[in-house]
Amino acid sequence: MVVVMDERATEAQIELVVARLVEMGMDVHRSTGVTRTVLGVVGQRRPDPGLIEMLEGVHEVLRISEPYKLASRTFKPEGTIVNVGDVRIGGDEVIVMAGPCSAENEKQVRATATAVRKAGAKIFRGGAFKPRSSPYSFQGLGEEGLRLMRDACNAEGMGLVTEVMDLSQIELIERYTDVFQVGARNMQNFTLLRELGHTRKPVLLKRGIAATIEEWLLSAEYILSGGNADVILCERGIRTFETATRNTFDVSAIPVVKKLSHLPVVGDPSHGAGRRDMVAPMARAAVAAGADGLIIEVHCDPDHALSDGAQSMYPAQFDRLMAELRIIAPAIGRSICLEPVARRGWGS
Amino acid sequence: MVVVMDERATEAQIELVVARLVEMGMDVHRSTGVTRTVLGVVGQRRPDPGLIEMLEGVHEVLRISEPYKLASRTFKPEGTIVNVGDVRIGGDEVIVMAGPCSAENEKQVRATATAVRKAGAKIFRGGAFKPRSSPYSFQGLGEEGLRLMRDACNAEGMGLVTEVMDLSQIELIERYTDVFQVGARNMQNFTLLRELGHTRKPVLLKRGIAATIEEWLLSAEYILSGGNADVILCERGIRTFETATRNTFDVSAIPVVKKLSHLPVVGDPSHGAGRRDMVAPMARAAVAAGADGLIIEVHCDPDHALSDGAQSMYPAQFDRLMAELRIIAPAIGRSICLEPVARRGWGS
Amino acid sequence: MVVVMDERATEAQIELVVARLVEMGMDVHRSTGVTRTVLGVVGQRRPDPGLIEMLEGVHEVLRISEPYKLASRTFKPEGTIVNVGDVRIGGDEVIVMAGPCSAENEKQVRATATAVRKAGAKIFRGGAFKPRSSPYSFQGLGEEGLRLMRDACNAEGMGLVTEVMDLSQIELIERYTDVFQVGARNMQNFTLLRELGHTRKPVLLKRGIAATIEEWLLSAEYILSGGNADVILCERGIRTFETATRNTFDVSAIPVVKKLSHLPVVGDPSHGAGRRDMVAPMARAAVAAGADGLIIEVHCDPDHALSDGAQSMYPAQFDRLMAELRIIAPAIGRSICLEPVARRGWGS
Amino acid sequence: MVVVMDERATEAQIELVVARLVEMGMDVHRSTGVTRTVLGVVGQRRPDPGLIEMLEGVHEVLRISEPYKLASRTFKPEGTIVNVGDVRIGGDEVIVMAGPCSAENEKQVRATATAVRKAGAKIFRGGAFKPRSSPYSFQGLGEEGLRLMRDACNAEGMGLVTEVMDLSQIELIERYTDVFQVGARNMQNFTLLRELGHTRKPVLLKRGIAATIEEWLLSAEYILSGGNADVILCERGIRTFETATRNTFDVSAIPVVKKLSHLPVVGDPSHGAGRRDMVAPMARAAVAAGADGLIIEVHCDPDHALSDGAQSMYPAQFDRLMAELRIIAPAIGRSICLEPVARRGWGS
Repeated sequence: MVVVMDERATEAQIELVVARLVEMGMDVHRSTGVTRTVLGVVGQRRPDPGLIEMLEGVHEVLRISEPYKLASRTFKPEGTIVNVGDVRIGGDEVIVMAGPCSAENEKQVRATATAVRKAGAKIFRGGAFKPRSSPYSFQGLGEEGLRLMRDACNAEGMGLVTEVMDLSQIELIERYTDVFQVGARNMQNFTLLRELGHTRKPVLLKRGIAATIEEWLLSAEYILSGGNADVILCERGIRTFETATRNTFDVSAIPVVKKLSHLPVVGDPSHGAGRRDMVAPMARAAVAAGADGLIIEVHCDPDHALSDGAQSMYPAQFDRLMAELRIIAPAIGRSICLEPVARRGWGS
Repeated sequence: MVVVMDERATEAQIELVVARLVEMGMDVHRSTGVTRTVLGVVGQRRPDPGLIEMLEGVHEVLRISEPYKLASRTFKPEGTIVNVGDVRIGGDEVIVMAGPCSAENEKQVRATATAVRKAGAKIFRGGAFKPRSSPYSFQGLGEEGLRLMRDACNAEGMGLVTEVMDLSQIELIERYTDVFQVGARNMQNFTLLRELGHTRKPVLLKRGIAATIEEWLLSAEYILSGGNADVILCERGIRTFETATRNTFDVSAIPVVKKLSHLPVVGDPSHGAGRRDMVAPMARAAVAAGADGLIIEVHCDPDHALSDGAQSMYPAQFDRLMAELRIIAPAIGRSICLEPVARRGWGS
Repeated sequence: MVVVMDERATEAQIELVVARLVEMGMDVHRSTGVTRTVLGVVGQRRPDPGLIEMLEGVHEVLRISEPYKLASRTFKPEGTIVNVGDVRIGGDEVIVMAGPCSAENEKQVRATATAVRKAGAKIFRGGAFKPRSSPYSFQGLGEEGLRLMRDACNAEGMGLVTEVMDLSQIELIERYTDVFQVGARNMQNFTLLRELGHTRKPVLLKRGIAATIEEWLLSAEYILSGGNADVILCERGIRTFETATRNTFDVSAIPVVKKLSHLPVVGDPSHGAGRRDMVAPMARAAVAAGADGLIIEVHCDPDHALSDGAQSMYPAQFDRLMAELRIIAPAIGRSICLEPVARRGWGS
Repeated sequence: MVVVMDERATEAQIELVVARLVEMGMDVHRSTGVTRTVLGVVGQRRPDPGLIEMLEGVHEVLRISEPYKLASRTFKPEGTIVNVGDVRIGGDEVIVMAGPCSAENEKQVRATATAVRKAGAKIFRGGAFKPRSSPYSFQGLGEEGLRLMRDACNAEGMGLVTEVMDLSQIELIERYTDVFQVGARNMQNFTLLRELGHTRKPVLLKRGIAATIEEWLLSAEYILSGGNADVILCERGIRTFETATRNTFDVSAIPVVKKLSHLPVVGDPSHGAGRRDMVAPMARAAVAAGADGLIIEVHCDPDHALSDGAQSMYPAQFDRLMAELRIIAPAIGRSICLEPVARRGWGS
């Protein structure tokens, strides 16, 4: 921490700041300049910068370390690879996860799973609990949805990622899923994050709609500090003044996160764009920018989807997208599953 | 809902859209103009506008009703008054709630409660559970904090507002508090909101840092639709590009909400500003703009607060602010408690 | 400037950064800590922080001085008072400027000027050049508009503030106006600002719709550094994700600017709110937050205004607002013209 | 335009709104529903929606046409190709423009031009007038800079794009440049745009830092409506709450603009990212998302650049990027100049 004093701070004010910092258990290095005094502050503890900033004569307090540790590339220089069965997220291959917004019935789940597996998706996505912004909308199938998706994944030889929305659901969902998904609205539900830190399954952590990259990494830290090292970050669009797209898919977050953190990062162009015809360009952009994977909404019949139909791709669109991605990936030294995944055994 | 067709939409495309809407159970009124066709859509159900927008030949879909009902002033023209003991929020008097960020120990709770009560605050605020953005910070006293605050409120004759962060805490907190506070990060925790709709205590619902006013009212709707009519809205600052203040306290949200909804709205200038010296100007602005109340962080010794010290007012600052507010309130036909509240009995 | 090195920066990298800074003419104080090295950098010049940040082994570069000088309260602790005739902006009295968006014809200009002068406004506002976001809208009366407004101001004994949009208009407008207004879109038109620095009339500088407070003060610096000390800052709303109001009127910018700068600051609630019924609450909030004045759109017949009719107040609404402001101003030790201004002589 | 009345609007209020619209020269189609009345409004003129919205009993006014015409794909379905010499922007080939932020001296201009031409750039970019946010920074070489760049372009057989900042510079710059660049800060300088509409050279119009896509297209409309059909749109990043990157490069704007407008759109990842190491990922993302070209800052010696050094690429980095782009372009059916451009004659 660096404390910058006002140009007109008095000696008494400076001494008071120093005394306060020492009282907090910090060491202070004072540097007196022509125009102002600057205090370098070091120590094991992290005093609240705001408290110091309020002291008389203080101009500004500058932080010189990130507030997160375990999520930082400084802490762990080589990239983390998260294993989901035999799928490696964060390795050379760009991993695509796909499926519907919500599980609606057996036929829809099976048809969609088969379609996305054939196109090259390695992990199936789908929701069972869907409390939505309006209390009057479809709210999901619950455990029945989990069961349908697990069966489809077993049949197709795919992994499953599904959202957990509350502490009370962890135990149930853990019985069915391979990866817990934490939605954007729960990115700072610290009660939930801390508990997920104690589970032994990977967590896909979506960025909050108004979360800075630093806050996102701090949320990852909550999970990591609980003992769960398998966190996958997921960019899904931020809220800005622009209303032409539902959210602004922040493609630049991908290289920024790869630089700051060792964790793998995937893009969610479906929620980023909010409409089907914008998903393919944003998916291509995410891979071109260096994403380790994608999570995409695909529905066997999006026109009749019970939720997010407008942003769900048709299976044929998804096929075309996968073909485009296979051309792009080598530009950044990556690959994408060249052939449809064969059915394999996959134990739950 | 109004569906605006492209200028070059074909007759076949128009008919397909009409057919799709009818299939969804809607009535369609078609209006053919010189440059384009517009479809007026009415009915009991609310089809997903995105689904229609994706159909060929559709230019845009315009919604003509708010998605919320019970929270709307159309539904209930006269303003709602929420009663907390004998304190009326939403009436002629501007109600001030004050207290520390978190309960730290008995002495701090008592000293602060006495100070704010003497200055004219009617409700005491304070937190017992404080999971913070970093997993390495002070996390609150838990139930012990609730007990300390309840005792102080009983002694001073004040009501208590404290935050509930998870479904699992409702029962415990309900035993101590008069008003549940839902924090900004939980504004769209629909699992929590739905459950609070089944309690019988008022809920102070903070606006999410990136929530539109419409989303905020939809969250209120979740609580109202569960049967709890006592929702108090609380503006606490939104995230914008400006970094000179921690958040941008959106004073204009106050008159906008008063126009759209019958629910009372209070301002939280402490979180809006993020630093003590900005709290008084923002508190005055909120009252001048028509707020029904304020919720303010005051600490008997902010320099040694365990959380939010930088934005907590000194008791003497708070006194001065209350005197200023007593001048401003009459400009908008309101009053503020003229004399210190006498100690009264207050049963929990 | 403080250069924070990576925790794993090598000695060679550190030495290269020091060498580079010395080459730029700076003095460097090196402080080696347990986890990382920090370099304090001082000198007369201001090297580009980005260039240093790109060097190998550099973690971050922190600036420790504001990039503006003349606009800073550090440079000039006492508040600046800008004189417009015998009106003092920045003194004890809150100064209200009012008038239509654009001058439309003699009758409209005269009627509006008389109405606002009677209500207590001291300066008349109005536009003559109105290039608007659509090329198909009313574009203003040009010089004829200036003449009409000057005549009305002379008749009513008021000062005039009007917008200058381009370098080429300065000379013409200077012949008619008392205060140049620089619109939000021109806040960073440095060619224009530099030239206004060479005029001898005050400049009311609106904040750009996406300008940080620091950028706003840097734009003021452009004018001040040209030799013109009479700059009045004007907050008029920023662009955020919220669409319920046209802009988010950033009331908190007022106390922030008063702290950082000695320049007077006024609020423009008409553009901040974008609709007439939101102007009064935002005007009251601005004064309560400490604004030195207001600039408000009032039209003698807003229903038939050629521009900005929806946000222009009726004269009766403006009267009522002035009465409310007279109650609020004393709360912060200010006053507002108690009686209608008598007609006085006012030389152009 | 569609006028939605309040659910509780009276018959008298509805009639008054109809009368007002008819007075404005519009035709009104009234549709009375169970809960509310909706008025469809058509006609040649475009009344101010705000004025109608302020009338008693009006709930909301919905616009059903874009406010721009000439820039719209509805108006001109096929994509526009802008010719710069024999370079076609908007065709099958992705066109890369590259060069330094500012022309500094002959050696720097020549060395950079040769380097970028060899790597495959077809147009040279560089600034001669650089008024910057601080009045204390390097301000450009002026006409001498234009001459140096013109000579280099003639020698290398490249076109030139350079920024025009003020009406008064158009004539001078037109003598040297092939394409006028309008910077983000001038996107709504309508005085300048209107005049550029009367020139006969293409205009590269950057998106303002806080401009919606609609406002950007309206600014293009200003140029098009003056008679100049050769407008190239340029996305360069928007301002959001995120501070990890200088701006948020809005990649999604590229497909949105391609859908709404026939004009070509290019990406400026240098300003979007603000730091050299983020330029390549963002450039790849822009091409993958469908951009018609790129404009990139490259400097023969970025460490000693007088402006924007931190975001200028080294020539070797730019070479590598071009190789990556050549892999990506075919994924979307485009190509990028495969071999270094041979020197050709290029008349100014």
